Amino acid sequence: MPVVVDAMGGDFAPQEIVKGAVAAATEFNLEVILVGDKGKIAECCIDTSSVTIQHASDVIGMNEHPAKAIRKKPDSSIAVAAKIAKETDGGSLVSAGHTGAVMAAAVFTFRRISGIERPAIACVMPSTGNDVIVLDVGANVDCKPSHLEHFGVMGAAYAKHVLEVENPRVGLLNIGEEAKKGNEQTLLTHKLLSESTLINFTGNVEPSGVFSGSADVIVADGFAGNILLKSTEAISNVLQGIIKKEITALSLAPEQLQGFFKSMARFSTKNPQYAGAPLLGVDGTCFIAHGGANAATIKHCIALADRFQKSNALEFMKSNIDR
Amino acid sequence: MPVVVDAMGGDFAPQEIVKGAVAAATEFNLEVILVGDKGKIAECCIDTSSVTIQHASDVIGMNEHPAKAIRKKPDSSIAVAAKIAKETDGGSLVSAGHTGAVMAAAVFTFRRISGIERPAIACVMPSTGNDVIVLDVGANVDCKPSHLEHFGVMGAAYAKHVLEVENPRVGLLNIGEEAKKGNEQTLLTHKLLSESTLINFTGNVEPSGVFSGSADVIVADGFAGNILLKSTEAISNVLQGIIKKEITALSLAPEQLQGFFKSMARFSTKNPQYAGAPLLGVDGTCFIAHGGANAATIKHCIALADRFQKSNALEFMKSNIDR
Repeated sequence: MPVVVDAMGGDFAPQEIVKGAVAAATEFNLEVILVGDKGKIAECCIDTSSVTIQHASDVIGMNEHPAKAIRKKPDSSIAVAAKIAKETDGGSLVSAGHTGAVMAAAVFTFRRISGIERPAIACVMPSTGNDVIVLDVGANVDCKPSHLEHFGVMGAAYAKHVLEVENPRVGLLNIGEEAKKGNEQTLLTHKLLSESTLINFTGNVEPSGVFSGSADVIVADGFAGNILLKSTEAISNVLQGIIKKEITALSLAPEQLQGFFKSMARFSTKNPQYAGAPLLGVDGTCFIAHGGANAATIKHCIALADRFQKSNALEFMKSNIDR
Repeated sequence: MPVVVDAMGGDFAPQEIVKGAVAAATEFNLEVILVGDKGKIAECCIDTSSVTIQHASDVIGMNEHPAKAIRKKPDSSIAVAAKIAKETDGGSLVSAGHTGAVMAAAVFTFRRISGIERPAIACVMPSTGNDVIVLDVGANVDCKPSHLEHFGVMGAAYAKHVLEVENPRVGLLNIGEEAKKGNEQTLLTHKLLSESTLINFTGNVEPSGVFSGSADVIVADGFAGNILLKSTEAISNVLQGIIKKEITALSLAPEQLQGFFKSMARFSTKNPQYAGAPLLGVDGTCFIAHGGANAATIKHCIALADRFQKSNALEFMKSNIDR
């Protein structure tokens, strides 16, 4: 069950991708297949004897139309990696490339799970309690309430089998906790989710509830979910920048600051733990890493993909959406 | 031109409100009228000789229906304060009470500015550059593109005359900077704003752009704007909590930490500078303070209301919406 990694996707590809893939293969003893331009991978001057390299001559650029690019470039690293993942028994796909193109490749190759109309990109976020999973964070900007019910099923499968939450509470991202709060879309969705037998719906969740872990799974349309995610990243980056500057100005000994940085790390946007976003709803394993992913992020993302693949999340999702 | 303050609204009313009102009157030499239960105000044991007190026998609770409560309780502190503000030449209204009820009172009493369909609640936010104004942050959860064009006019008037930005750049909150990014609503809005002669539209702004000040005015529907605001507050509170705990653990001398806390203060949700939200689009001055407002926040909010009232923002708004 190899993890198939697109070596050419991401701001720091192929250097950081190759480095991360080799680290994952070595440290976690995983079977990793690196897909990309053999020459460029060789130029990284990294010992790749622990991984398998599969050549792909083409690359999909960040400004290309996702679905068209996948169709027009069957030899692109993303398309080839998806194909290999599909053809090897239980292979997973990992890419830090063009999000839309990775999604298109995964949907074309793995196909959607029967009964799920819209695969979603999920994001595991830290809270002051357990980690929470938020979806969709950008794949579907306009959603029907039924899509959000499916997101709940998909997220609950991940929470139960990867985050190890027994009976995941599913909450709806909203601007107030009361049932009557929200816009037309969230009001309709609240009604549907309240009546749903597919999920353990526990009500509306405000952004503060996300970070206090008042639900395990937070469903939202991809627009609202993306605003939540990006707002969090943005202000977190600003604050961490200020902190770093001011802490440096204090000229303290590194050992004095260990506790400080450890506490902050969980909420850092640079935390590799949160840098891999599962694409849920396709009949296979696909993780999308942040475009700015470095080797540590890629390494973690590969481990996460392997963990998801070996869990019962996918089977659980299929049987629950079928009920 | 008095600032008329609802003494009974907010989690810490009347104590903190009275204290803040007296501080504003004394420190800034402003005419302040406090409206509320005379007995309860007296129980605060604060010297109120610098302000005028007007009795109001009723109070609107946090769970009442906004418009109905204003109609049913003409003697409530919010309704009386709005009436006094309207009847005194150029009076401003300040309340930390039920947001919906304050809005309803302001709209009933001041009336909407001719041509503006939807008044909006605006929020001034810090950025790594100048402050930015975001609207709507919760008054209108479902909007038409034309409403967002008006929000642009309203926000630009505030930015020009209160934040002193010469030719305010108006941006649209979105999940990508490119014109073709977003959901159905933002795509339609982008088109309308691009063609607008009423505002200086400079394109889409992602949450990171809000905090880097890539526009001076950010327009959004009240749902997306509220998610942005609350996400920011939520993660900022979590991070500041961690920082405070860890910094305390370092046992540093207070003078060593002055720079640190000064840098953080600008982005603190407790910063009184950002605790007063103007209700824009009504023909008068109305500032809504955070429910958790303390005396310092109320004091600043009163000063902001006075500053807005004495500026040309309202006239500028009227003449621009009329064009």
